[in-house]
Amino acid sequence: MDKSALLALLASVERGEITPAAGAERLTNLPFEDIGHARIDHHRSLRIGLPEVIYAEGKTPGQVADIFSRMAEAGSDVLATRVSTEAVTAIQLAVPGTVHYEIARIVALRQALPLNEDEWPCIAVLCAGTSDLPIAEEAAVTAEHFGVRVLRLYDVGVAGVHRLLAVREQLVQADAVIVCAGMEGALPSVVGGLVGVPVIAVPTSVGYGASFGGVTALLGMLNSCSPNVSVVNIDNGFGAAYTATLIARAKRR
Amino acid sequence: MDKSALLALLASVERGEITPAAGAERLTNLPFEDIGHARIDHHRSLRIGLPEVIYAEGKTPGQVADIFSRMAEAGSDVLATRVSTEAVTAIQLAVPGTVHYEIARIVALRQALPLNEDEWPCIAVLCAGTSDLPIAEEAAVTAEHFGVRVLRLYDVGVAGVHRLLAVREQLVQADAVIVCAGMEGALPSVVGGLVGVPVIAVPTSVGYGASFGGVTALLGMLNSCSPNVSVVNIDNGFGAAYTATLIARAKRR
Amino acid sequence: MDKSALLALLASVERGEITPAAGAERLTNLPFEDIGHARIDHHRSLRIGLPEVIYAEGKTPGQVADIFSRMAEAGSDVLATRVSTEAVTAIQLAVPGTVHYEIARIVALRQALPLNEDEWPCIAVLCAGTSDLPIAEEAAVTAEHFGVRVLRLYDVGVAGVHRLLAVREQLVQADAVIVCAGMEGALPSVVGGLVGVPVIAVPTSVGYGASFGGVTALLGMLNSCSPNVSVVNIDNGFGAAYTATLIARAKRR
Amino acid sequence: MDKSALLALLASVERGEITPAAGAERLTNLPFEDIGHARIDHHRSLRIGLPEVIYAEGKTPGQVADIFSRMAEAGSDVLATRVSTEAVTAIQLAVPGTVHYEIARIVALRQALPLNEDEWPCIAVLCAGTSDLPIAEEAAVTAEHFGVRVLRLYDVGVAGVHRLLAVREQLVQADAVIVCAGMEGALPSVVGGLVGVPVIAVPTSVGYGASFGGVTALLGMLNSCSPNVSVVNIDNGFGAAYTATLIARAKRR
Amino acid sequence: MDKSALLALLASVERGEITPAAGAERLTNLPFEDIGHARIDHHRSLRIGLPEVIYAEGKTPGQVADIFSRMAEAGSDVLATRVSTEAVTAIQLAVPGTVHYEIARIVALRQALPLNEDEWPCIAVLCAGTSDLPIAEEAAVTAEHFGVRVLRLYDVGVAGVHRLLAVREQLVQADAVIVCAGMEGALPSVVGGLVGVPVIAVPTSVGYGASFGGVTALLGMLNSCSPNVSVVNIDNGFGAAYTATLIARAKRR
Amino acid sequence: MDKSALLALLASVERGEITPAAGAERLTNLPFEDIGHARIDHHRSLRIGLPEVIYAEGKTPGQVADIFSRMAEAGSDVLATRVSTEAVTAIQLAVPGTVHYEIARIVALRQALPLNEDEWPCIAVLCAGTSDLPIAEEAAVTAEHFGVRVLRLYDVGVAGVHRLLAVREQLVQADAVIVCAGMEGALPSVVGGLVGVPVIAVPTSVGYGASFGGVTALLGMLNSCSPNVSVVNIDNGFGAAYTATLIARAKRR
Amino acid sequence: MDKSALLALLASVERGEITPAAGAERLTNLPFEDIGHARIDHHRSLRIGLPEVIYAEGKTPGQVADIFSRMAEAGSDVLATRVSTEAVTAIQLAVPGTVHYEIARIVALRQALPLNEDEWPCIAVLCAGTSDLPIAEEAAVTAEHFGVRVLRLYDVGVAGVHRLLAVREQLVQADAVIVCAGMEGALPSVVGGLVGVPVIAVPTSVGYGASFGGVTALLGMLNSCSPNVSVVNIDNGFGAAYTATLIARAKRR
Amino acid sequence: MDKSALLALLASVERGEITPAAGAERLTNLPFEDIGHARIDHHRSLRIGLPEVIYAEGKTPGQVADIFSRMAEAGSDVLATRVSTEAVTAIQLAVPGTVHYEIARIVALRQALPLNEDEWPCIAVLCAGTSDLPIAEEAAVTAEHFGVRVLRLYDVGVAGVHRLLAVREQLVQADAVIVCAGMEGALPSVVGGLVGVPVIAVPTSVGYGASFGGVTALLGMLNSCSPNVSVVNIDNGFGAAYTATLIARAKRR
Repeated sequence: MDKSALLALLASVERGEITPAAGAERLTNLPFEDIGHARIDHHRSLRIGLPEVIYAEGKTPGQVADIFSRMAEAGSDVLATRVSTEAVTAIQLAVPGTVHYEIARIVALRQALPLNEDEWPCIAVLCAGTSDLPIAEEAAVTAEHFGVRVLRLYDVGVAGVHRLLAVREQLVQADAVIVCAGMEGALPSVVGGLVGVPVIAVPTSVGYGASFGGVTALLGMLNSCSPNVSVVNIDNGFGAAYTATLIARAKRR
Repeated sequence: MDKSALLALLASVERGEITPAAGAERLTNLPFEDIGHARIDHHRSLRIGLPEVIYAEGKTPGQVADIFSRMAEAGSDVLATRVSTEAVTAIQLAVPGTVHYEIARIVALRQALPLNEDEWPCIAVLCAGTSDLPIAEEAAVTAEHFGVRVLRLYDVGVAGVHRLLAVREQLVQADAVIVCAGMEGALPSVVGGLVGVPVIAVPTSVGYGASFGGVTALLGMLNSCSPNVSVVNIDNGFGAAYTATLIARAKRR
Repeated sequence: MDKSALLALLASVERGEITPAAGAERLTNLPFEDIGHARIDHHRSLRIGLPEVIYAEGKTPGQVADIFSRMAEAGSDVLATRVSTEAVTAIQLAVPGTVHYEIARIVALRQALPLNEDEWPCIAVLCAGTSDLPIAEEAAVTAEHFGVRVLRLYDVGVAGVHRLLAVREQLVQADAVIVCAGMEGALPSVVGGLVGVPVIAVPTSVGYGASFGGVTALLGMLNSCSPNVSVVNIDNGFGAAYTATLIARAKRR
Repeated sequence: MDKSALLALLASVERGEITPAAGAERLTNLPFEDIGHARIDHHRSLRIGLPEVIYAEGKTPGQVADIFSRMAEAGSDVLATRVSTEAVTAIQLAVPGTVHYEIARIVALRQALPLNEDEWPCIAVLCAGTSDLPIAEEAAVTAEHFGVRVLRLYDVGVAGVHRLLAVREQLVQADAVIVCAGMEGALPSVVGGLVGVPVIAVPTSVGYGASFGGVTALLGMLNSCSPNVSVVNIDNGFGAAYTATLIARAKRR
Repeated sequence: MDKSALLALLASVERGEITPAAGAERLTNLPFEDIGHARIDHHRSLRIGLPEVIYAEGKTPGQVADIFSRMAEAGSDVLATRVSTEAVTAIQLAVPGTVHYEIARIVALRQALPLNEDEWPCIAVLCAGTSDLPIAEEAAVTAEHFGVRVLRLYDVGVAGVHRLLAVREQLVQADAVIVCAGMEGALPSVVGGLVGVPVIAVPTSVGYGASFGGVTALLGMLNSCSPNVSVVNIDNGFGAAYTATLIARAKRR
Repeated sequence: MDKSALLALLASVERGEITPAAGAERLTNLPFEDIGHARIDHHRSLRIGLPEVIYAEGKTPGQVADIFSRMAEAGSDVLATRVSTEAVTAIQLAVPGTVHYEIARIVALRQALPLNEDEWPCIAVLCAGTSDLPIAEEAAVTAEHFGVRVLRLYDVGVAGVHRLLAVREQLVQADAVIVCAGMEGALPSVVGGLVGVPVIAVPTSVGYGASFGGVTALLGMLNSCSPNVSVVNIDNGFGAAYTATLIARAKRR
Repeated sequence: MDKSALLALLASVERGEITPAAGAERLTNLPFEDIGHARIDHHRSLRIGLPEVIYAEGKTPGQVADIFSRMAEAGSDVLATRVSTEAVTAIQLAVPGTVHYEIARIVALRQALPLNEDEWPCIAVLCAGTSDLPIAEEAAVTAEHFGVRVLRLYDVGVAGVHRLLAVREQLVQADAVIVCAGMEGALPSVVGGLVGVPVIAVPTSVGYGASFGGVTALLGMLNSCSPNVSVVNIDNGFGAAYTATLIARAKRR
Repeated sequence: MDKSALLALLASVERGEITPAAGAERLTNLPFEDIGHARIDHHRSLRIGLPEVIYAEGKTPGQVADIFSRMAEAGSDVLATRVSTEAVTAIQLAVPGTVHYEIARIVALRQALPLNEDEWPCIAVLCAGTSDLPIAEEAAVTAEHFGVRVLRLYDVGVAGVHRLLAVREQLVQADAVIVCAGMEGALPSVVGGLVGVPVIAVPTSVGYGASFGGVTALLGMLNSCSPNVSVVNIDNGFGAAYTATLIARAKRR
């Protein structure tokens, strides 16, 4: 409920169109009626202009499909992440026209008129090794769904730094950079030194032994000696894409 | 060394002005000669346009003053963070015209012509409690030194959420938000739900017992349920300001 | 064995009805004979007036059903938590009249005459997201079984704090509040600032990556800046309900 | 701002006494004007009826004394915890009539008319060894300041369980029990089995080697096999007293 | 190879019965030939007089059965711990006359003439709850196999300390005490205060959430305030029985 | 209060010498009156026959001296561990005839007639390096004070295993072995393979970096592949000596 | 791209054979064209002379077989580690002539003419127990594939140190030593004291309870009191063999 | 004691020159007589040919000076690491001709005739930042003392990877490479990809917040994606130099 709506309501009270008691009641409840069946993503979506998102892990296929179709009916673009095989089937049965990105474990629905792709901002998504691909693709597909052009620069780990230097020219075109890496998680520091834009580091759970399911990569990234690096949770490709999208869109507004 | 410089060098070889052997030598070494006494910050500074920075912790007062004056002589703006009392004195003796920000533990020198402040982008710096002030000020002073306007919104911790809601209107003007919090580190999640821009979360070492010197706040922030939150190291106000500056400046370019 | 029983025994010795040796023997063993087949829950149940409880995890279906029916035969109300599908079947075969709460993984038997529900004390059970439901329901069903009225306020996580503010009026009616949350575990701090009664925080194992199976939520809650928050083990909805019941019942005595 | 105030405001708008625009302004800001210079403790204090509290650690002696005297001028009771020697002196110079509890590191001021002590609720504060005394006293003095009678039962650690059994009769009179213990932190479990009221466990940083500054005691308490035990942060005697007070006061309302 | 064997060998050299070269060869290799195909348990067994033991976890059923039958052929008593169902079958097929202890996951073979049981030393094995039974039985069966009488005192956890006090008279007869407990691991401290013999504490992996698979119990036991408590690895019932046997046998020699 | 005292009390009730009410009262309180001023060490001391012990860390010099002289007046042997320089002076002023062991940080008083030293049992105390000496001496002096003969075998770390083998013959005379080691804590495993008696392992806080103040040594010892090794807390030389004394004395009874 | 290639290119520019623009283009891209399809292992392989290696874990059987056959076609020796049963089949179908080492989980292909084995350098691979065999064999097979002779000295754990001393003469022939051990990880320290060459320690995930999947062994090895010990990741037999090969080959060059 | 000495001894027994009893005695003790007063460093020094070393931390200045002068009297080169200012003075008073390396905290004495420096092998010591200098110098000075030529390549951290590439040509001349880095510890991975010799990684305790005193760097290095990296303890420059020396010397033998 924004300020103009508040003014309108109070004007109605002034004009005697609604009683003070009714006004008080509405002032308490309205903001949440307005956005309908009161879901935070919906509220955030309205305010920020990014499509609805469903985090499918820990929900039954039925629940995921229900939420997906309710959102689809409202006419918005929909994105579901961490979708199991069963949930993919359930969504596909419930909603026609969805696209399934298998490596990224994402199902998406496009309904809004797309922006002119030429005007899209651009980010780069890097990963250190091929095992990081699912997380890198979660980030890339999410960003594209949000209207961002993505440069995929994969398998550029630091043990062969010439591979990274070879893509430097592509890299510097991006408005924001996402770097996914497991094991020692050193790639964001090296990338951070090559670009002048924010780097969002995503530790992945790739590794064994003392990689502790991504904790080593996470700690390494938090201690990066490059000051333009910030970090999200282990395997959180979605969150990195969300932040990178907000950064990149700023450039074009 | 950018592409045009490379072309110029090769053209000199073509014209016989320099021998292939000399050209090979320069191609190996030149980029680092160009930026002089070979310091990464200098190199980054040239490329990105942010002033020189000295991380003073772990350096002697003499070393800090030396580096500071060498940078100052080169005409650039200079910022030194985590400066001890002794290092402040050493800098002040070596370089006239510096400003000392006591709470932020920063010494800064302004030499470049300032931008028109009206055109400055804007960020907000929040902190949960008064004990977080040194880190919040490190972030705020750094950002201001980088040419960013800062809204300081302090002591708005989640145990009294009405305090935070009271500053919501100011909050939504910012192009990026920095949130400093110790103890349970919950503030970035609540702030993330109120704004549509990136939130840089800074865990602080404020707390006792099971706060483990900021680790609890760090973990809480990494697990934020708000997707627009990314995180930097414990007490790293400088890094948060660096990234927030890069985000905010994008808006104005 | 309470004081009056002790006095009666000594009076028998005084009257010569039992010898000192027999008296000494009984003084050593009697208290545990009295409560029969010597189980702590039984003893606690007698003293405190709460029904018998079985923690089913780590027991075979047969063992769970045996204990359940032995308690049921003694006429008491019985509650079994963390019950597997197999154990549910075993109980239902052994004891008629039980109720199975599927989400809460609880099987319960009501035999005592219920108190007048109007006189029941009231607690609120909140959870941050839908994945926290099993733990929240374990708490809610347990409390109801113990004779407490429960306000269920679910999916009110801090990333959309307006959702929580919308239920504030209900919240302040409770004599004690249970808050279940995973990930960053920030909800108890915000709730603690809104109410004037004890808040029992239950970290849940919901999350991924650096949530460490609930450890991050646990640490966050222990560091809460709201002084009316105390904490139980990860996923321990039962324990939270036990303590909340003891608090709420005090109000009505 | 409660509902009646809201109705009054809207009635003023209806009567044309204030314009809609002014009403909108006040609806946004008023609740926080009401409680004055917007400090959460003040707000909580008004609502709950407990005195103002200052956590002195991490504040300068001057800051502590300033806040203390501002609160004292408002006529309320004041409690400052974790007070350094310097801060004690600063408070005593600024505010006459305070009491300094040395072991508890607390300075308190009583201004309100005391309740009739006979009507005070009662809690017990136990500790395992003499090294736990500072935390136990922080809890005990805080609770007394909040109008609660305290049974101090000290040095009753589990390695000599007969000592604890000897105080059982006193123990069962309490409306809530606080148990402070370091090292293995086993005392709350044993106490929890002896009483039918909530037990608030406070791990202390007492111990060496694998006690890890209280972490071992904390973990032990979280895993208590007594279901009436909940836990606060390491050394947080104040928080335990706050919650215990809320529990105990419920009995007498 | 003991000293007398060494003297005999050298005497043979002196008498010219064997050459110096052959003697040198045997001095290098003999000690390990003597105890056969060089297995440490065999060597230890000879020296200490305890039967052979096989730790079956991580070995294939075939390997376990092979080692078991090779030891059995040598005429010694044999004990295999942590035996899977498949390994049990493999042993039973390979060696007649073994006994399978199901809860303890042990298969044993008795071949030596038993000592007169009346002369056996005695230990007590306690456990806190029924879930600790597998570990307690691993300890009890192992000790009995080693010729020690075992008092089993189960389900005497500290949340109902009267249960423990009821068995105190039995407890004080033991020459050593083994205490198995999971969750908070508090039982050894209480037991340690009741007896004047060494207490071997075995943390078990029983528990959930912040019990961390037995780490909390382990830490609690290491910090025991009873000075007669020492600790073995999580779930190491076998090791506790080994040490307790060495202690108890000393009494009877 | 033993059984005969209980029988005597009940006989008095039978004879009418005391009333049932008075008897009930005494049955509740007497056992703890008997041991007087109710200190667990005193109680344990009476039962087990080991001298009184004071853990001085965390007590003021005055407190230590007070307790020491109260125990000395009772005629018992007294041992104070972890004694600061100030506390040593305070004890020496208060009690004549004490002995100060500087490296072991122990002050002791001998008052009882000593046993014939020839009949003393014998233990060995080993340490890996010279930095472990304070802990090894704490163990050795404590055991001697308890009437045990101590073989000191120092600086026999595993990086030069021939040093350890050279003392093997002395080692096998001991009734129990204490092994102190920091860093990787490997010594107890090697020693455990050389002897047929219990080995009490004491991790020390000696080391740097990833030794984590003794945690690495502690973990290593808990995972010892020698089954006769049990472990006490980091730097707990006293506890190791206490348990080793109980083991060794069993041999001679 | 080495220096001579660079000189040749520049000479072509000088002679006008290629334009400066084309030269600039090639200087940016050429080094990575040279090594073809741009894979780090290939690049490293060319430079160092060790065969190609595939880390199969986390790749599908199809991916593994594809990479394997592409490398085989290039004529090089190929080694695949951590190969699942399915991947073994896939490789065997795709490439004839491979050898499968089952315990080591390795598939290898030999194509190059072997060196004269008599000239091979020599390393020793030790392991503490039979459960460490898969890792020890991963190291041994890898080294042999790289042209190193391997002394396998297995089951020589420190609890029976005579077993290790018996192989000392073999041990001292090695140019480098690899030691694999789980549990307390003490073996490298003892071995380090017996040899004058580098010891590469490999912690294995063998153990239970407080072995934490190899972390205890890892920490023990990092704290080794033998200065010639360095450490690789848990279960990283391959990496140890890689480094040991580089060390051993130096001897023969 | 080697095989020929053993044969000689046995021949003496054969010839009746010594009795079997005396022979047995000598066979038990001799090996340790040979190396004199039985100190491991001395023994190792004799066998390997590296000078004596004293780890001074945790020893008193007097102890350090005593050991130093005893070694010096034996004519050997001596190296003392981690030497405090007081210990430096003590050594200088006791032994003339020593050299003090201040940054490296080392005191050294050269007595042996130096090798011809031209024949020395060569290693490189790299560090990421200037704060790593004390550890890098500990490594460099140690290696030089052991007769190794050292290339010092400092301040080449990964955030400005061009700095590292600029020294690549020097780097590839080394027979072994030591890399010291704190914070994220990424440098060894990048270096490992540039060279074909073993890389010894030394994590340093440089950093703050989530660097955890070097643990983050340690974990990063253990998870290096370069297979030629092995790791030593945090800040263990000495150990790295020891191993690197053994590697480098192999090249020249």
